Amino acid sequence: MQAIGCKRWAIAEGYIPSQSVSTERALVSHETACILNAGDHEANITLTVFYADREPVIYRLTVKARRTLHLRFNDLEDPAPVPLDTDFSSVFESDVPIVVQHTRLDSRRAEISLLSTTAYAEC
Amino acid sequence: MQAIGCKRWAIAEGYIPSQSVSTERALVSHETACILNAGDHEANITLTVFYADREPVIYRLTVKARRTLHLRFNDLEDPAPVPLDTDFSSVFESDVPIVVQHTRLDSRRAEISLLSTTAYAEC
Amino acid sequence: MQAIGCKRWAIAEGYIPSQSVSTERALVSHETACILNAGDHEANITLTVFYADREPVIYRLTVKARRTLHLRFNDLEDPAPVPLDTDFSSVFESDVPIVVQHTRLDSRRAEISLLSTTAYAEC
Amino acid sequence: MQAIGCKRWAIAEGYIPSQSVSTERALVSHETACILNAGDHEANITLTVFYADREPVIYRLTVKARRTLHLRFNDLEDPAPVPLDTDFSSVFESDVPIVVQHTRLDSRRAEISLLSTTAYAEC
Repeated sequence: MQAIGCKRWAIAEGYIPSQSVSTERALVSHETACILNAGDHEANITLTVFYADREPVIYRLTVKARRTLHLRFNDLEDPAPVPLDTDFSSVFESDVPIVVQHTRLDSRRAEISLLSTTAYAEC
Repeated sequence: MQAIGCKRWAIAEGYIPSQSVSTERALVSHETACILNAGDHEANITLTVFYADREPVIYRLTVKARRTLHLRFNDLEDPAPVPLDTDFSSVFESDVPIVVQHTRLDSRRAEISLLSTTAYAEC
Repeated sequence: MQAIGCKRWAIAEGYIPSQSVSTERALVSHETACILNAGDHEANITLTVFYADREPVIYRLTVKARRTLHLRFNDLEDPAPVPLDTDFSSVFESDVPIVVQHTRLDSRRAEISLLSTTAYAEC
Repeated sequence: MQAIGCKRWAIAEGYIPSQSVSTERALVSHETACILNAGDHEANITLTVFYADREPVIYRLTVKARRTLHLRFNDLEDPAPVPLDTDFSSVFESDVPIVVQHTRLDSRRAEISLLSTTAYAEC
């Protein structure tokens, strides 16, 4: 398939609640960036996480050709985990077009709550 | 009405929970692509579903002129159903302009939770 | 303020649940189009509601200069109310730039659930 | 990093519920504009809040270079707080590119509910 998307994306909202009523991976509170690489070339992505009161932190990731990656910010480790209960934003810069959507599952209370939005794209 | 929308749309997020507290169709956990074809010509659409670790799968659908279709990914059957509890993304390619919005109703717990976003458009 | 927005907007998702646990207006299940008219001229808007299996229905509304209107689809009456528990889509066509955002409050269960997205804009 | 975003943003939806089941700051019902300033210059922002039946109100704020600000409308005070249980819309005008995302946490009931969307951008 012809690639679809843009090379720069931003998610202004970001927050991982430290509380979860469940320890099941699917139901632990998580913040996700869903990344679609519909084209025929691997996507090499630089992810920059911005904070309210400290310098940004940079991560590297790849998404294979014709694959999706539902990246949990909770799972980032190198160079450092994203702190919980902390406001952040993120920018994705890819060498090929991708599509990015932001989703949070919040299970601080007995019932889960969801939010999602297509991120801001710059082509 | 003059047609509105674009011919290529992407939804980077996709996930159908296998659990539901209700068996009533309106309240079963579902993942939906709402497709508006406001123009005067039928829309012939190719839907490609992308996964994290296998090749994409292609579906065909049509939306009549001046009609909306709220397509549940749960209902796709040919060539194969979309697996539950599995991350996916989707791309819609139409021969006329359409508008696509992504909605999930999650009823894994006693209360329902909703998310929705206008999909990413490429005109 | 200089006007902001576009003259054509589409919301592909639409559904008013017939059930509500509350009769308080703020908590009755409702489907809303929030319309901002930031400019200095009144907005005259044609709203077309599309269905899955019948012809579209047209409504007229106005939003005053420098005002917002949070329009509940539940409140539309002329020429006919929007049926409950029924899939629909909507298109807004204005004579001046406006901004449209779609929000649903669902109170079918004991707890409320929310969704929202900026609508699809065509300038 | 090269700046990302636009200088004018609009959020057509706005509503701060007066009720909350919790007095914990993270769980009090709140309406938020998440603002990312990824570039190397401070963002000076004029925020205009629009109402259904009165004139707009103007606020000033700044977001430092390479920082995010998760602004709660609940916290605005000068020249006046945003009234609760009242429909509003907002427009952000910045002197440098920013990205704006709208999020509400609603805790009127025992369980929280979330909505979020990338705001409408005008570059």
